[in-house]
Amino acid sequence: MTKEAPGTAPDWSQRPQTADAWVRRAHEVAALLAEDAVERDRAGQTPYEEVQLLKDAGLVTLLAPAEYGGGGQDWTTAYRVIRAVAAGDGSIGQLIGYHYLWAWAARLVATPEQIEAVERQAAQENWFFGGAVNPRDDDLVIREEDGELVFTGKKTFSTGGKVSNVTVLEGILEGTDDHVFAIVPTDQDGITFPGDWDNLGQRLTESGSALIEGVRVPWAAAAGYTETADGGHEFVPRIYNTLNVPLIQLVFTNFYLGIAEGALTRAAAYTVAHTRAWPYAADRKDRGVDEFYVQEAYGDLRSKLWAAEALAERAAAQIEAINAHADSVTPEERGEAAVVIAAAKQTAIDAGLEIGTRIFEVTGARASANAVGLDLYWRNIRTHSLHDPVAHKRAEVGRYALTGELPAPTWYT
Amino acid sequence: MTKEAPGTAPDWSQRPQTADAWVRRAHEVAALLAEDAVERDRAGQTPYEEVQLLKDAGLVTLLAPAEYGGGGQDWTTAYRVIRAVAAGDGSIGQLIGYHYLWAWAARLVATPEQIEAVERQAAQENWFFGGAVNPRDDDLVIREEDGELVFTGKKTFSTGGKVSNVTVLEGILEGTDDHVFAIVPTDQDGITFPGDWDNLGQRLTESGSALIEGVRVPWAAAAGYTETADGGHEFVPRIYNTLNVPLIQLVFTNFYLGIAEGALTRAAAYTVAHTRAWPYAADRKDRGVDEFYVQEAYGDLRSKLWAAEALAERAAAQIEAINAHADSVTPEERGEAAVVIAAAKQTAIDAGLEIGTRIFEVTGARASANAVGLDLYWRNIRTHSLHDPVAHKRAEVGRYALTGELPAPTWYT
Amino acid sequence: MTKEAPGTAPDWSQRPQTADAWVRRAHEVAALLAEDAVERDRAGQTPYEEVQLLKDAGLVTLLAPAEYGGGGQDWTTAYRVIRAVAAGDGSIGQLIGYHYLWAWAARLVATPEQIEAVERQAAQENWFFGGAVNPRDDDLVIREEDGELVFTGKKTFSTGGKVSNVTVLEGILEGTDDHVFAIVPTDQDGITFPGDWDNLGQRLTESGSALIEGVRVPWAAAAGYTETADGGHEFVPRIYNTLNVPLIQLVFTNFYLGIAEGALTRAAAYTVAHTRAWPYAADRKDRGVDEFYVQEAYGDLRSKLWAAEALAERAAAQIEAINAHADSVTPEERGEAAVVIAAAKQTAIDAGLEIGTRIFEVTGARASANAVGLDLYWRNIRTHSLHDPVAHKRAEVGRYALTGELPAPTWYT
Amino acid sequence: MTKEAPGTAPDWSQRPQTADAWVRRAHEVAALLAEDAVERDRAGQTPYEEVQLLKDAGLVTLLAPAEYGGGGQDWTTAYRVIRAVAAGDGSIGQLIGYHYLWAWAARLVATPEQIEAVERQAAQENWFFGGAVNPRDDDLVIREEDGELVFTGKKTFSTGGKVSNVTVLEGILEGTDDHVFAIVPTDQDGITFPGDWDNLGQRLTESGSALIEGVRVPWAAAAGYTETADGGHEFVPRIYNTLNVPLIQLVFTNFYLGIAEGALTRAAAYTVAHTRAWPYAADRKDRGVDEFYVQEAYGDLRSKLWAAEALAERAAAQIEAINAHADSVTPEERGEAAVVIAAAKQTAIDAGLEIGTRIFEVTGARASANAVGLDLYWRNIRTHSLHDPVAHKRAEVGRYALTGELPAPTWYT
Repeated sequence: MTKEAPGTAPDWSQRPQTADAWVRRAHEVAALLAEDAVERDRAGQTPYEEVQLLKDAGLVTLLAPAEYGGGGQDWTTAYRVIRAVAAGDGSIGQLIGYHYLWAWAARLVATPEQIEAVERQAAQENWFFGGAVNPRDDDLVIREEDGELVFTGKKTFSTGGKVSNVTVLEGILEGTDDHVFAIVPTDQDGITFPGDWDNLGQRLTESGSALIEGVRVPWAAAAGYTETADGGHEFVPRIYNTLNVPLIQLVFTNFYLGIAEGALTRAAAYTVAHTRAWPYAADRKDRGVDEFYVQEAYGDLRSKLWAAEALAERAAAQIEAINAHADSVTPEERGEAAVVIAAAKQTAIDAGLEIGTRIFEVTGARASANAVGLDLYWRNIRTHSLHDPVAHKRAEVGRYALTGELPAPTWYT
Repeated sequence: MTKEAPGTAPDWSQRPQTADAWVRRAHEVAALLAEDAVERDRAGQTPYEEVQLLKDAGLVTLLAPAEYGGGGQDWTTAYRVIRAVAAGDGSIGQLIGYHYLWAWAARLVATPEQIEAVERQAAQENWFFGGAVNPRDDDLVIREEDGELVFTGKKTFSTGGKVSNVTVLEGILEGTDDHVFAIVPTDQDGITFPGDWDNLGQRLTESGSALIEGVRVPWAAAAGYTETADGGHEFVPRIYNTLNVPLIQLVFTNFYLGIAEGALTRAAAYTVAHTRAWPYAADRKDRGVDEFYVQEAYGDLRSKLWAAEALAERAAAQIEAINAHADSVTPEERGEAAVVIAAAKQTAIDAGLEIGTRIFEVTGARASANAVGLDLYWRNIRTHSLHDPVAHKRAEVGRYALTGELPAPTWYT
Repeated sequence: MTKEAPGTAPDWSQRPQTADAWVRRAHEVAALLAEDAVERDRAGQTPYEEVQLLKDAGLVTLLAPAEYGGGGQDWTTAYRVIRAVAAGDGSIGQLIGYHYLWAWAARLVATPEQIEAVERQAAQENWFFGGAVNPRDDDLVIREEDGELVFTGKKTFSTGGKVSNVTVLEGILEGTDDHVFAIVPTDQDGITFPGDWDNLGQRLTESGSALIEGVRVPWAAAAGYTETADGGHEFVPRIYNTLNVPLIQLVFTNFYLGIAEGALTRAAAYTVAHTRAWPYAADRKDRGVDEFYVQEAYGDLRSKLWAAEALAERAAAQIEAINAHADSVTPEERGEAAVVIAAAKQTAIDAGLEIGTRIFEVTGARASANAVGLDLYWRNIRTHSLHDPVAHKRAEVGRYALTGELPAPTWYT
Repeated sequence: MTKEAPGTAPDWSQRPQTADAWVRRAHEVAALLAEDAVERDRAGQTPYEEVQLLKDAGLVTLLAPAEYGGGGQDWTTAYRVIRAVAAGDGSIGQLIGYHYLWAWAARLVATPEQIEAVERQAAQENWFFGGAVNPRDDDLVIREEDGELVFTGKKTFSTGGKVSNVTVLEGILEGTDDHVFAIVPTDQDGITFPGDWDNLGQRLTESGSALIEGVRVPWAAAAGYTETADGGHEFVPRIYNTLNVPLIQLVFTNFYLGIAEGALTRAAAYTVAHTRAWPYAADRKDRGVDEFYVQEAYGDLRSKLWAAEALAERAAAQIEAINAHADSVTPEERGEAAVVIAAAKQTAIDAGLEIGTRIFEVTGARASANAVGLDLYWRNIRTHSLHDPVAHKRAEVGRYALTGELPAPTWYT
């Protein structure tokens, strides 16, 4: 990230007052990130400064209640912010997106008292959230010792890691099938991040493994657990608990869309500035932008991306409708939102991969130089879109289209 | 159209009171149309009864001001109604769509007095509008005789024709470049429809040629023309005049979407009811709907169609924003709406053609029987989507994506 | 089919002497068929004259040994002939293709004596073969009466039907799992064709049901059966029996390719002759053929079709290699040919459907007139390509690509 | 490249005797290259050892006449060798492919005496050819000094560079429009390679710029120039000179195909070895290879690649037919070969990019690790396929499909 002279930085001394102003703020952040996104990706440097930028811009507390000093915005705005940030830097878009989900974890599973405590402190201290929650790794085990919960084990993938202030842990209570979530300080002896994320894209997301060794959590911090009459602890599930997957799948969708938007915007600027017309054409043009195939390709890609964005906005509206009555959400509402989100995700991935590949055809051979770095977009979308098989997402949507079947809540649907 | 026993007809004695209720009404109409859409298409019968059905349902006056007895709805609702009707019968969806445009012609080009007069009478008499306006035919000539305008010539394509009460004529005033629009009774000696529309799809739209022979129109009915101080007549153009193309292109988009929706819905019903699993599969399923490839294909098609619909809705919102201040619309607003509509149209065509082709793969060989008639959808979209070259629409969107260039208003952009 | 004046007919008094000359002959036939293919499709007339044309041209005995008066050609040539004929008329291409398979049925399953007898008589009498063999219909039952086999039952689909001289029957010997094939005269009381084929495409193929009522066949005509020492009858299977499916699947592939070739050729001729440039383009061209998008689309379609044809030719070479040692073909050779044929079929279908749909975009709106009839190609490919699910063909190829697994011979692989 | 223990190296002491044996030899080379292709790509090391491997295997003299100790093979075999090598390492496939073209340069433009001299020495000394010939750079100027030609200037792109023994130079004779080709030793003071090729893919091809400073070439080495009666020099053009572009475009096509083959093969091996089934599927499978979508995707990709390969083989046959009578090749033969090669190239690029992108979907999220390196294939094809705009290649094929127009020979068609 460019360290510009103080005078050129945007003025973020005032908190945005409207949703649109928040999105504009996110675009300002994105513009700064875009300046050296290619170089930072290559360097593979831990994004401490970039997370600080998110904090400085106020984006980190976007969803926190205004009464605690947060932005008091809804998820629709959060999704737009994710999209905007990802257009500047896909990795940072992913980080802020996961952060919003982890920051919302209390709302999903905690008790009213826990929610209040977490959100107040998070807003005051401008917490950046990470998570070690990947459900396909089930070797994080919780033992009860001295009336406390002790987490030990490993998650192959996490997000946020070192750059986070707090980490959402998830494990299984030994001898039971009970999952427990807890928010713990990241900076403690029992948590280490080996830094083993070396993948094709989304390289600055600190997505490697997390080693958890004896992290102690009082029962009072076990999200959603209350003490029973007999001194035990119980978690009473409700449908809204299962909104975590739709929420995060739509986070994914939005940073894919943002990355694709970044790709299209940068490619267009390159084409305008540099791309030459084909000198051997019968109907020779002056500039690359005058070539019909160039115009047609940009139109095709722009249209597909707009359509995918529009569907993501529709999905966000369904999430918003659910959030308006979280306590009484029905399985049908939850399932229908999940299906539309699955559709939006597929559409975003299709558009994003096509854009990531075809932009080269309309920028030209010299745009394949690493100094240009136009491959960043394909790599970023290609990598994260493998999170869970899109073929199964399509099948999920297909079963709904055929018979109205709604996906049973799992860690992936 | 099925003539069902009176007892089974929906009760349309009350006019819908909300936008949603109007859309539900349209779905009721569509359900009736769908019952024999395949048979009526084959018969190629002039859709007198179907237009009567639209009138009976109240849909014909949807856009007319409530004070004259109309529905008082906006274009967003009109587009949804078009989509709903087209899902039952693509031809009738096109007819109602063009009707809305022609019924809106006064708003686009007429004087306030003309608008009031036309809308009042149209609402009271439940007029169905047709049009003979295709701008690539420029041989409809207007001569002034005895202080009246006399239209004579031919339009190769028209819409509505015989089933309309009034027809919007468009011609060029002899010796000038001035276009004149006028609304005239369809049923008069000077207008004949040879009935020469024999094309692949949208067969019940009465889209053949119109012969105009000495149709007389007083100057007072020349839309938008006012008398000048010296006794002449002048038309003062404004930007809103040029909204005709975005409005109708989004009409197209919506009936394509409706047709695709009809295709997907009917195919899904067929697959559920009839499609067998492949008996030679290693992993043999019980029913066609259990085959992974069937589920995946429906999911893929459903997702693409939702995305296209979402973009059409976004485009409608831009039209609505413009209609809210028609007198002060800027070229930028007009151009940006046109670009998004061009994108929505392309996306709808892509989705529609793919759905029209691939539904056969998930319904199976027996679904190719003409008694099933699943080809209707591909034929309908394939035919009308040739109205103007989609490649040029893509290029229009592409120029905007590249340089922000907005399309100059023409009869097609 | 046009009944041209004798003077204009090609001179077919001499039999072609080379494979290339046979293919040229097929192109001559195709040119005649193409003259009224659209009209005959619409009329849905039984193709007696068209089959006579195939006979007159000598194509019917192409595969028959030269010593009996046949063409003595190999399957590579037969496939090219099918492709050429199908380019003129897809239905007739299918008829000649199935004919070749049925005419080859003796080679696949019969004894040397039976083969000689059938091929001699077929060549001398210029037999056109039909078949009632669809294996997913298993209700054609054979009872033994008075030392003869009596076939009774129904096949939902057959090919050739009324226009054939002989029909290949297939049924199951009552009380066993033994399939018996026999070639019987079509014109007999026990065989009737209800004429119930009314499907979207390939309309002139006589593909409707066949009712079989007491058709008697002596044991000596049961293909491949020999008398055992105890007076019973036995069929000793060999791998070459199972070549029927690869042979016919490659027949399918070739008439799909021919249909696609016909589509592309006719569309190109239309574009050159009629398609106008878009008058509203900034960079306005004189003619449709000068538009970049038109050129690019034809290039894309032409390339895809050439690639699919090249793969079909490669598959034919594998068939030829097997035919060169039919008695010692290995399961690996058979399986590898089947996989490549499955790949060729998929590729042909993809190219054909895309061509059938996109040709409209490069011919323009007026080409959607039924008088032009450009929809014939999409309808023809769409219909027959549903014969068995292409998704399962893809999976068959995929298993081979993944693990080298070869498809177990069934009626469809 | 792995330095394996001597005992494990293939035995290359004998020269292959058949075309098939040469292709097997190339596969052996590819297997060695594949072992560390990912690591070497990352290291970006100049491929001295890899070129030595090509020499050791005998592949470098494949096209040289047997009488001089060369392989005496034709271009069909050369193309297959390129494909095979590229499957192991795309960069090295490109190097050997360009080498064949430069080694053939004498045949294209030189006099019989020059051809003999070059081929004899090249075979004896196992020359590896590089080239500095990019025609869009026209700033390599030739001055005549002391009866010699002196080349000075720069080519932005070259191939082979440092790893070559000789370099084909191309420049324009000052004050004329005459191009002169000459083969000069690479290792001389006047030639330097700044090593500025830092692009997305094909990273080991030494494709950076070449600086030429006073390289002296006697007139006798100016390819194809002969002395005129008046002591001047002249070049008499013939059609075969223009075969350079079809030859090299088909070289490109074949290394794209090889890269795609390598991608598919490595991905399949990964899927078989590592990819897990989706645990949340209703119809849960044991292994990734059992998932229907995985099988279907591999089948789709395998089919497309086979089709593209088959078309490339067909194109090679057209080149072979031309080479059989190089002195009398007609413009039609040349043009038709160029068109088919353009089609083959397009098809190879389409298949290659799709394979390079979709293999991730069937290998899974963990396959995005850089240690796996599956992105190499997409990067390699994406980069080189921008050499000249594929849209213009499609248009070239399209003009031929429409009107039979053949491309006029240029440096790119």
